[in-house]
Amino acid sequence: MSDDLRKEVCDLHAQLIRWGLVTWTAGNVSARVPGEDLLVIKPSGVMYDELTPDHMVICDLDGKLVEGDHAPSSDTEAHAYVYRHMPHVGGVVHTHSPYATAWAARGEPIPCSLTAMADEFGGDIPVGPFALIGSDAIGRGIVETLTGHRSPAVLMRQHGPFTIGTTAKAAVKAAVMCEDVARTMHFARQLGSVERLPAAAVDSLHDRYQNVYGQHNSGKKGAR
Amino acid sequence: MSDDLRKEVCDLHAQLIRWGLVTWTAGNVSARVPGEDLLVIKPSGVMYDELTPDHMVICDLDGKLVEGDHAPSSDTEAHAYVYRHMPHVGGVVHTHSPYATAWAARGEPIPCSLTAMADEFGGDIPVGPFALIGSDAIGRGIVETLTGHRSPAVLMRQHGPFTIGTTAKAAVKAAVMCEDVARTMHFARQLGSVERLPAAAVDSLHDRYQNVYGQHNSGKKGAR
Amino acid sequence: MSDDLRKEVCDLHAQLIRWGLVTWTAGNVSARVPGEDLLVIKPSGVMYDELTPDHMVICDLDGKLVEGDHAPSSDTEAHAYVYRHMPHVGGVVHTHSPYATAWAARGEPIPCSLTAMADEFGGDIPVGPFALIGSDAIGRGIVETLTGHRSPAVLMRQHGPFTIGTTAKAAVKAAVMCEDVARTMHFARQLGSVERLPAAAVDSLHDRYQNVYGQHNSGKKGAR
Amino acid sequence: MSDDLRKEVCDLHAQLIRWGLVTWTAGNVSARVPGEDLLVIKPSGVMYDELTPDHMVICDLDGKLVEGDHAPSSDTEAHAYVYRHMPHVGGVVHTHSPYATAWAARGEPIPCSLTAMADEFGGDIPVGPFALIGSDAIGRGIVETLTGHRSPAVLMRQHGPFTIGTTAKAAVKAAVMCEDVARTMHFARQLGSVERLPAAAVDSLHDRYQNVYGQHNSGKKGAR
Repeated sequence: MSDDLRKEVCDLHAQLIRWGLVTWTAGNVSARVPGEDLLVIKPSGVMYDELTPDHMVICDLDGKLVEGDHAPSSDTEAHAYVYRHMPHVGGVVHTHSPYATAWAARGEPIPCSLTAMADEFGGDIPVGPFALIGSDAIGRGIVETLTGHRSPAVLMRQHGPFTIGTTAKAAVKAAVMCEDVARTMHFARQLGSVERLPAAAVDSLHDRYQNVYGQHNSGKKGAR
Repeated sequence: MSDDLRKEVCDLHAQLIRWGLVTWTAGNVSARVPGEDLLVIKPSGVMYDELTPDHMVICDLDGKLVEGDHAPSSDTEAHAYVYRHMPHVGGVVHTHSPYATAWAARGEPIPCSLTAMADEFGGDIPVGPFALIGSDAIGRGIVETLTGHRSPAVLMRQHGPFTIGTTAKAAVKAAVMCEDVARTMHFARQLGSVERLPAAAVDSLHDRYQNVYGQHNSGKKGAR
Repeated sequence: MSDDLRKEVCDLHAQLIRWGLVTWTAGNVSARVPGEDLLVIKPSGVMYDELTPDHMVICDLDGKLVEGDHAPSSDTEAHAYVYRHMPHVGGVVHTHSPYATAWAARGEPIPCSLTAMADEFGGDIPVGPFALIGSDAIGRGIVETLTGHRSPAVLMRQHGPFTIGTTAKAAVKAAVMCEDVARTMHFARQLGSVERLPAAAVDSLHDRYQNVYGQHNSGKKGAR
Repeated sequence: MSDDLRKEVCDLHAQLIRWGLVTWTAGNVSARVPGEDLLVIKPSGVMYDELTPDHMVICDLDGKLVEGDHAPSSDTEAHAYVYRHMPHVGGVVHTHSPYATAWAARGEPIPCSLTAMADEFGGDIPVGPFALIGSDAIGRGIVETLTGHRSPAVLMRQHGPFTIGTTAKAAVKAAVMCEDVARTMHFARQLGSVERLPAAAVDSLHDRYQNVYGQHNSGKKGAR
């Protein structure tokens, strides 16, 4: 089963490339190993074209290497912190996608002004604190910002977006949509001002998208 | 024949990807089944790479599923409303293409300032009302905005463009050209102001493009 | 030999796609048939993916179809006018490439502020008049603007760029570089002002690029 | 061994295309031949799709052709000057990548406001002087600007970026990251102002990235 998960996490990195979220080696996807205090993550500094499932490494939830021939992503501590403190999270993604990172550079939340934002994020995409790598600061900033927030994305100040999901694929989707709406709102704001959607409209759209959109073969609410 | 149409509608989704109009699963093409009160449309929330003709679903013109193994696009009601009220329409497309959606976010029509806009749209690309999914509101907004208008595209406020055509391919072309001119006009306006073309020039260009441009097999009318 | 030229002109359209200069069917390349009062050009309204050498049509220098099964590009008259009046021109390209067309929409020449512009264009890229299709007006505007000008590109007002070259490939190169510098200058101007290069530097760069750059196997000056 | 280096330098040009740094033929990679006063570089004016290892030429450190069937890149003198004066440099890259060149056009350094900039550049990306091709001026400008600076990239005024590295691949990486951060900072500044990171944070991030990031096979030093 961890073989399947290595392959899934490996393959999801191709989506980061495909949607233009990452440059060179700067971005990573992880997944929680179901039922264990472990995560699967990309190795550090390996180019996306060269990634294979065998490159993926397994770490414990303190970010320490448990299995694998490569050093884990330098962002592993942040991913691990999220899994430790947000038990419903099954996947984490980090990128420096350019439009989202531009909002992060200014420390400006992306206002919820588009139906697509209400659908996926249920409100503004919030800004997290500036935090240096090498301690719990990034993970703590992510968790504190996203706790009690509908948005699966946080813009870490002067750094870039982190996204979460119940699965790694859901977190990748959130990263893709975060860049998409960051770009559209950037364009919109370049030539004028844009109002936020009314709160009732946001609630209605978010509820519908989370519970009705997509294929629900097994009657599960919110299955995506 | 509905098999051919499923394949055609399926294949046209690749054009949405190719021209950068859609992200993840957010955009859809439909076609009217000729001579019947039915439409063919994309299923909800299925990724474009995984789409096959068998995924396409057939709905009646109230948007209810008639044939197919998947839930129809969540925008089916809007498509169906258009087919019910605009009998000349054979195809409908919806995207959140970024430049067009940026104009939609500001609620600003795209002024007809380029010969390419006069050709395809015959004037400004108009803005439709803000409308929530889940009722006739979106379809009604599209129909009311486009009725009596030359433009096959409408920018639904804070949502995104819908386009129509006599065929699904024509509606896809309108979506592609809508994003193209939305982008060029965005760039033009970023560094200054742009005048609209004179009405007589718009009329002349639109008439010529609609009636002379392209291949006219019957007797090479307009063979230039 | 006209078979070779059909293939060459057909293949050059792939460069328009590759460098992002064209959308759907809006852009065309032509070549003069050496030693004859004829040109080879793209047919009207055919999608780039479907273009084969057999689609290419041959017209006389009044733009009338001489050979081929398809209606020629609706821009053929403009191409033909250029060949009639500029005997050194062997290739013509027209696109609506977005950044160049944005400068054309404002009617603003692109100032020669980059070494790459001095190399290829030898000065500003000039603006030509607004002109309607269907007469000599576009061709005349191109010829009048480019006569006595180093630039192989003209921005036809509220329309888009036309470029010329001694060969079709040179005209395609000029179209590609025109969009490239239009984009860079757009970005540069968005955040401040940019000075033109001194005239002596422009002269020196242009002379060197036209006469020294590239491979000169046969000792020909300016061979590219 | 020089065969391996020709292949390596040839292949690295594909990364310039892949990350959108170059248009047509305008950009080049070189590598120092280890232990010899020679460099391997792209030939002048050859299109990237046609490049093979056999096209690569070998020059001495005055930029004179030593081996190869093609004229060397017109930027060879600048590369050669860098190798003569910076003995630790093993690779040099030059592009006109659009966002970096836009900063260069304004003569404006890119402020170090993102963690990704601190990682790779250790501070602002500086601007070098305007210099004409055909003398030592460009090479001297690069060396004078980068000497004593952490940044492996310099924005040559009204021209474009040059980057250096201990290997050609490292210089290519610097060129790719230079464009990446030039773009993100462009977006960030379009809608507001951005503060530089505190100097201590820049120092900490740069030290960590240069010494810990990536795979360190010898004893997994820094295996995180």
